[in-house]
Amino acid sequence: MEADRARILLTCVDRPGIVANVSGTLYRLGANIVELDQYTTAPWGGRLFMRVEFLLPGLEERRGELEESLHELSESWDIEFQLHFASQRKRVVVFASLADHALLELLHLWRNGELPGDIVAVVSNHTRLAHAVSAYDVPYHHVPVDREKKEEAEKTILELLEGYRPDLLVLARYMQILSPDFVRRFPNRIINIHHSFLPAFVGKNPYEQAYARGVKLIGATAHYVTEGLDEGPIIEQDVARVTHRASLATFKQIGRDIERTVLARAVKWHLEDRILVYENKTIVFV
Amino acid sequence: MEADRARILLTCVDRPGIVANVSGTLYRLGANIVELDQYTTAPWGGRLFMRVEFLLPGLEERRGELEESLHELSESWDIEFQLHFASQRKRVVVFASLADHALLELLHLWRNGELPGDIVAVVSNHTRLAHAVSAYDVPYHHVPVDREKKEEAEKTILELLEGYRPDLLVLARYMQILSPDFVRRFPNRIINIHHSFLPAFVGKNPYEQAYARGVKLIGATAHYVTEGLDEGPIIEQDVARVTHRASLATFKQIGRDIERTVLARAVKWHLEDRILVYENKTIVFV
Amino acid sequence: MEADRARILLTCVDRPGIVANVSGTLYRLGANIVELDQYTTAPWGGRLFMRVEFLLPGLEERRGELEESLHELSESWDIEFQLHFASQRKRVVVFASLADHALLELLHLWRNGELPGDIVAVVSNHTRLAHAVSAYDVPYHHVPVDREKKEEAEKTILELLEGYRPDLLVLARYMQILSPDFVRRFPNRIINIHHSFLPAFVGKNPYEQAYARGVKLIGATAHYVTEGLDEGPIIEQDVARVTHRASLATFKQIGRDIERTVLARAVKWHLEDRILVYENKTIVFV
Amino acid sequence: MEADRARILLTCVDRPGIVANVSGTLYRLGANIVELDQYTTAPWGGRLFMRVEFLLPGLEERRGELEESLHELSESWDIEFQLHFASQRKRVVVFASLADHALLELLHLWRNGELPGDIVAVVSNHTRLAHAVSAYDVPYHHVPVDREKKEEAEKTILELLEGYRPDLLVLARYMQILSPDFVRRFPNRIINIHHSFLPAFVGKNPYEQAYARGVKLIGATAHYVTEGLDEGPIIEQDVARVTHRASLATFKQIGRDIERTVLARAVKWHLEDRILVYENKTIVFV
Repeated sequence: MEADRARILLTCVDRPGIVANVSGTLYRLGANIVELDQYTTAPWGGRLFMRVEFLLPGLEERRGELEESLHELSESWDIEFQLHFASQRKRVVVFASLADHALLELLHLWRNGELPGDIVAVVSNHTRLAHAVSAYDVPYHHVPVDREKKEEAEKTILELLEGYRPDLLVLARYMQILSPDFVRRFPNRIINIHHSFLPAFVGKNPYEQAYARGVKLIGATAHYVTEGLDEGPIIEQDVARVTHRASLATFKQIGRDIERTVLARAVKWHLEDRILVYENKTIVFV
Repeated sequence: MEADRARILLTCVDRPGIVANVSGTLYRLGANIVELDQYTTAPWGGRLFMRVEFLLPGLEERRGELEESLHELSESWDIEFQLHFASQRKRVVVFASLADHALLELLHLWRNGELPGDIVAVVSNHTRLAHAVSAYDVPYHHVPVDREKKEEAEKTILELLEGYRPDLLVLARYMQILSPDFVRRFPNRIINIHHSFLPAFVGKNPYEQAYARGVKLIGATAHYVTEGLDEGPIIEQDVARVTHRASLATFKQIGRDIERTVLARAVKWHLEDRILVYENKTIVFV
Repeated sequence: MEADRARILLTCVDRPGIVANVSGTLYRLGANIVELDQYTTAPWGGRLFMRVEFLLPGLEERRGELEESLHELSESWDIEFQLHFASQRKRVVVFASLADHALLELLHLWRNGELPGDIVAVVSNHTRLAHAVSAYDVPYHHVPVDREKKEEAEKTILELLEGYRPDLLVLARYMQILSPDFVRRFPNRIINIHHSFLPAFVGKNPYEQAYARGVKLIGATAHYVTEGLDEGPIIEQDVARVTHRASLATFKQIGRDIERTVLARAVKWHLEDRILVYENKTIVFV
Repeated sequence: MEADRARILLTCVDRPGIVANVSGTLYRLGANIVELDQYTTAPWGGRLFMRVEFLLPGLEERRGELEESLHELSESWDIEFQLHFASQRKRVVVFASLADHALLELLHLWRNGELPGDIVAVVSNHTRLAHAVSAYDVPYHHVPVDREKKEEAEKTILELLEGYRPDLLVLARYMQILSPDFVRRFPNRIINIHHSFLPAFVGKNPYEQAYARGVKLIGATAHYVTEGLDEGPIIEQDVARVTHRASLATFKQIGRDIERTVLARAVKWHLEDRILVYENKTIVFV
């Protein structure tokens, strides 16, 4: 049945008829809508966002027909469409550094069949996690990042990625800042986990910052990477309680649990085509 | 604009075309869909649930037309429809006993314009809260409940309610069990707040039960009242943490905060026509 | 029994013997320790914090004796002591502006006997809440704040406060920034509720800021007021989930619920002498 | 420094002098109290519970002295003592079945140095997790459990355990009910994770039960195992939100995350000697 499953994400200026025409088109093609979620910032002139998940029997052979119909709709109603096929599992490359918790969480979920995509490679600026990754039969690429020669490292990575044709890059505590040039190549296709409740504690050492400030909750934020550091659209956030007894080490231990969970949710939603980005915010259809 | 706003809640056997036909009908009438949420337990033969909120210019004069169109759809597609008009604010009667927190929360939200309905009366088996309620200009009816003569009390209440024509009864810690006969008159139209995480601690003194069991979280559950005690469809639940230091009195203090919040959410969702009931479960479109 | 109840809060450089000498002294006086909680940042040379709650039969007549014993301990061990008597209920003045939720929560808890202190007056720069407060038999003082003449307003307030001899000032969404001069008069005795998860969204319009940033959780922070805006020691924080559907108005509605709860917890802990402040952080013994 | 670290857990009838005498004794021995937490159910005659963590320089050589002092205290004040040495890391045997998440969490934390004890063996009634466990260099014992011959399996396990001298058994989704005989050998030394918010959904298939009931939160409960099924003292509980969209499979996925976290917390607290059991409830000093 996954072969017949597809999803549409769309946005346009709000006006009457969008739902009727999109669902009508799908109906005429013989599709059965499994889930439809629509949201409008303001009727008549605001922004409309919509996600449709549907089953179209014989989808494989009828892709052209479907794409053409949507193209026509797009033209006549000025709609921006994304069409995703469940059978085209997204290819994910995970970036890690020394900490293993976020990376292992994704590998573990993937092996258990809980991620609707495939982790095709791991890139790290260290060798430490190579052994742990090998248990999952995923290639591990060690690309050291010399502070003086960041460009070279990125060039190496880009060459690597060419071979993998990734749909999504996940920074699972990668700890390296990617250049604007690099980021621009993957718009809304790089997810980072920041270990604070953004926009609090942007940048380096957020746990140290949180500890110094004496907060009573610590958090983690999964967001799409944009050129501004930690300023991209937020996908998901969560927090956990800490007390005055918690040392900095405890902050980090507790934080790891939130980080991996928040990142896993964000990655899952991306792979299920549940996220639209508009004006640096996310619309997450869950 | 509220005069033009309406909501449809529907359920039927899942098959292709439901969304297309409902949204198509609304489009032909000139309506603008503000929010549509659809969910299917299983495609082709499972159960489909849907909520549509829309604006139909000149709705007041076009009600007949709208109702007729939906009636036709209902006939040809075997759909169970509910049609609600935002301009017909639901009439709510709140039942209370001695505790004020849940009742005052509802009155407070209502006065602040945060409840899209109207509290038209309060019924209590005690006089204690009469003064507090008077500050909100809502009639307070004291109907004592004699354990031996419950039927009489219910009869008195039913007569009272006739005058108020309520759309919803809310048991805000009423502490009296309504008879099956009474309950049957208001199917899915009585909301109760039970002061435990159901189905744990059904019945009397749930905090005492929770305290005796040594739980580490206490909860509250808002549900529709059915004939089986505390067995109706759950609308909303929440919990709060307690430690071994918490006395029974502290359990109750902490609990009050969750009770009022959980009840307020459930009542609000009901008044916004966000809840469908099917096979003793709720579908809550939020 | 409340007449015999007292609490000690203390801090000193960590070294062996502090617990033994303090508890030994109390034992010799005939006191029964009800609750003792001690915490050390680092043994031998770090900072030690401690709270003891105890019952001393005939406390009323034996205060002098108790105070003298603690004074001796303080001298020989270089301990900073606070001694609080449960029978000396703390006097609280609440400051409000236009929003009622935080103020009413405190008044409601107080009337229900859940605040171990007394609200002796309400000060507001508006008249709006005078009626609501009158139901609680608490004097309401309207002190308008003219942006050009802030000093005058503060002078009026200070004169008012003289009559009330408050132990604690609570800013329940007061929305006015107090001058450094004012703040210095009440060190660690002014609690403010800030409507964001500090240090995110310092200053004005935090909900607007949070909405613009597209966060997925909104928060509230209770803190002691210091001269730096929103920079004082954090006492308590909490958050609630929001989605892309939540409008700015919804942010504020959801936020009100957290604000009042977080503020109430902080005020309660202060009145129960559970909070120590050290280097702009709080130690909260709960 | 860990070599000098010890912890006392004690309980007795409440009366004045317990803290003073225990801390006085430690002081005279030269110990520095790092953390002391004391709690009384009711002063004069209620039950007193206390945990002290301290550093005693040269503890290794002075154990006899310490034990003797505590023994004397125990005699004269009728106190039940537990004395634990941080240097005697507790030996843990983990029991698992087919699901890996709870087991792997413990192994992962242990390898990261976040569990103050040692996992010395894994016992499973299946072979499935043998490979995963081998990566952690922990012996894996496959002891099949034939429904007709449970006793034999338990006998095999008991023989195995003899070699390991475990301080703690952890049932990480073991799915087998241990006999009363087996349980009695390890009083308050077997921790189980039950995949529901106890006492809701006792026994088999709690997620199926929760799904059928239509709850809005699912939970997990870590408790000590006693002879009554799922009736032992609760150590920790937590919950996560589910909606009507969540399938039974989703319940289980979401649940796994809470299960492992709740179990890990309970095991950690046990290994840090933070838990006292009294009348089927736990006092958890955190």
